[in-house]
Amino acid sequence: MKFTLNKKDKKTAARRGTLVTPHGTIETPIFMPVGTHAAMKAMTPVQVKETGAQIILSNTYHLHLRPGEELVAKAGGLHSFMAWDGPILTDSGGFQVFSLPNKRITEEGAYFKHEVSGEEVFLDPARAIAIQEALGADIIMAFDECIPYPCDRKYAAKSTRKTLRWAEQCKKAQTRKDQALFGIVQGSVFEDLRAMCAKELVQMDFPGYAIGGVSVGEGLDLLKKVVEYTAPYLPENKPRYLMGVGLPEDILESVERGMDMFDCVIPTRYARSATLFTNRGKIRLTNRKYRRDFYPIEPNCTCYACRNFTRAYIHHLFNANEVLSAILASIHNVHFYLNMMAEIRRAIEEGRFADYKREFLESYLKGA
Amino acid sequence: MKFTLNKKDKKTAARRGTLVTPHGTIETPIFMPVGTHAAMKAMTPVQVKETGAQIILSNTYHLHLRPGEELVAKAGGLHSFMAWDGPILTDSGGFQVFSLPNKRITEEGAYFKHEVSGEEVFLDPARAIAIQEALGADIIMAFDECIPYPCDRKYAAKSTRKTLRWAEQCKKAQTRKDQALFGIVQGSVFEDLRAMCAKELVQMDFPGYAIGGVSVGEGLDLLKKVVEYTAPYLPENKPRYLMGVGLPEDILESVERGMDMFDCVIPTRYARSATLFTNRGKIRLTNRKYRRDFYPIEPNCTCYACRNFTRAYIHHLFNANEVLSAILASIHNVHFYLNMMAEIRRAIEEGRFADYKREFLESYLKGA
Repeated sequence: MKFTLNKKDKKTAARRGTLVTPHGTIETPIFMPVGTHAAMKAMTPVQVKETGAQIILSNTYHLHLRPGEELVAKAGGLHSFMAWDGPILTDSGGFQVFSLPNKRITEEGAYFKHEVSGEEVFLDPARAIAIQEALGADIIMAFDECIPYPCDRKYAAKSTRKTLRWAEQCKKAQTRKDQALFGIVQGSVFEDLRAMCAKELVQMDFPGYAIGGVSVGEGLDLLKKVVEYTAPYLPENKPRYLMGVGLPEDILESVERGMDMFDCVIPTRYARSATLFTNRGKIRLTNRKYRRDFYPIEPNCTCYACRNFTRAYIHHLFNANEVLSAILASIHNVHFYLNMMAEIRRAIEEGRFADYKREFLESYLKGA
Repeated sequence: MKFTLNKKDKKTAARRGTLVTPHGTIETPIFMPVGTHAAMKAMTPVQVKETGAQIILSNTYHLHLRPGEELVAKAGGLHSFMAWDGPILTDSGGFQVFSLPNKRITEEGAYFKHEVSGEEVFLDPARAIAIQEALGADIIMAFDECIPYPCDRKYAAKSTRKTLRWAEQCKKAQTRKDQALFGIVQGSVFEDLRAMCAKELVQMDFPGYAIGGVSVGEGLDLLKKVVEYTAPYLPENKPRYLMGVGLPEDILESVERGMDMFDCVIPTRYARSATLFTNRGKIRLTNRKYRRDFYPIEPNCTCYACRNFTRAYIHHLFNANEVLSAILASIHNVHFYLNMMAEIRRAIEEGRFADYKREFLESYLKGA
């Protein structure tokens, strides 16, 4: 994997890069739509590609439980199994395990209950890597402990040191040379812990770095702070991935602070509950005021949904409980995110990222 | 609307025709996928077109209740509202009203409760035509009383005469000249009533004729009989539509007896419950034996699902409750039906329909 930094913004830390992977080239900053079970929710791979997606994310935890990495490997790996020929990133399962109610996390790894069979499952750095090697994504993630928020300093420090030991173990466990393993910076909201974690990881020399644990309830102000004091410790010539983020405003603030890659279930999850993104903020399409609204979701949008259907029609689909409502809304929301990323890239190239961000947010936050 | 009979099979009553409508040409025999609420379930119009669909059906009853024909008309009619630029047929609502538990049918029309608002709704021939004119389909249907099965001769005779009076009223109510109004033959399983109804309708001179009331539980043997003794009363130079039918074997038997058009929710409904059609019969994809089956649903099929995905993958999608399971299964099943219709047309053209039917059923029924 090769990362090239094409341009740095003069006024902010925003960066414009190119990441070459075995399954294709990714222009950064980029948003990665999430296909948890080796499938985007309510979209075919062709529709995902049409939204402008360059790379998608899938979840190791879910695929390990069902259908199991062995079956995916037998199918020829994740790309072949799900018919997505572009780049894929898999997370390590750390975040999902952390979200479970009955997990038990030790020095060695995490124990939890299989949500289908009820059996106890054990995940540790070596197994997380082995699973991700069987799945075969282009970018794989280190197994980390995602720290709950809020969290006291003592636990955060202890946990961050464990994440570092696990990162080392992940590196050692890696056998495939065609997958790029990213290290994950933890440290909760403590600046010195984030700095320590970043520095130690950089010592280990990963091909890319992620900031984890910022999508678990801190809010935009803390997110900005964490990114602001963590990103400078990450090497300039490596991609930087902010995990699980976020809303358009979160992404803009994080690009400004030097982040390159993002993923989030928000565009597809919101779509299924009729919340659509537009340049004038989010709209709730089930609202009665859209019953006779014969405009597209977003008049300037070029997605399949906006080129062909009206708000009135999609409002009707949601009312009638038609699956097509989720399909069209998902296409639009994912396209909205990826179009925003394309605009961000163009703005950085043309040296006007700060203006773009201001103008976007003025319109977006006023309308919301 | 213009119907041309291109070829008649020598051994059977099967026919190969061409039907020209304001929104395009339909090659018959043809199957019409059903988009009840002005939407195909789990498919975009582009995906519907890719399955080979030439005409789709939408339901007057459902659209009258939600979103209402007035709104559809304001959107520019059904084609524009749902972004389907090909031919559309709307039923009259008669069958749906008949299926309701608390309807009241009089000489004038049918009273029933609005399933959303709870208000009493009244539908009669004039209103059924006015609604269908507002919706703007290419082919519209007369408002009929669909007779329950089994039914005594006395009620069937009375009801059939009412359907004939209503057909006359529908003809009088029609104001648009760009829509083809089809008459519907009722008469339950009584040969003389079917004959009487067909002859009377032919006297009224409709541009097309349907046989109704055969999809309500009679089974294949009675279906064959009803079609066999009804079709000969219908004029050769007009299209013949068998309403609500059916399974592949039902369609083949009915084509053999001279029917041209079919519609049914089976391919999409079965798809959503993981029942897939193949040349070797139906398969239930949630069955554990497909867990590691890396073949397509149907190895010779050219649909998007079969070109890109394995049974193992779609089995996984159903297990994981992913919407994509319904999307891919619907694409396959609708494609299977439309591919069968294309094969039927070719077989008739080449004078080998009886052989085609025998070979298809041998493989299909043996495998099931």
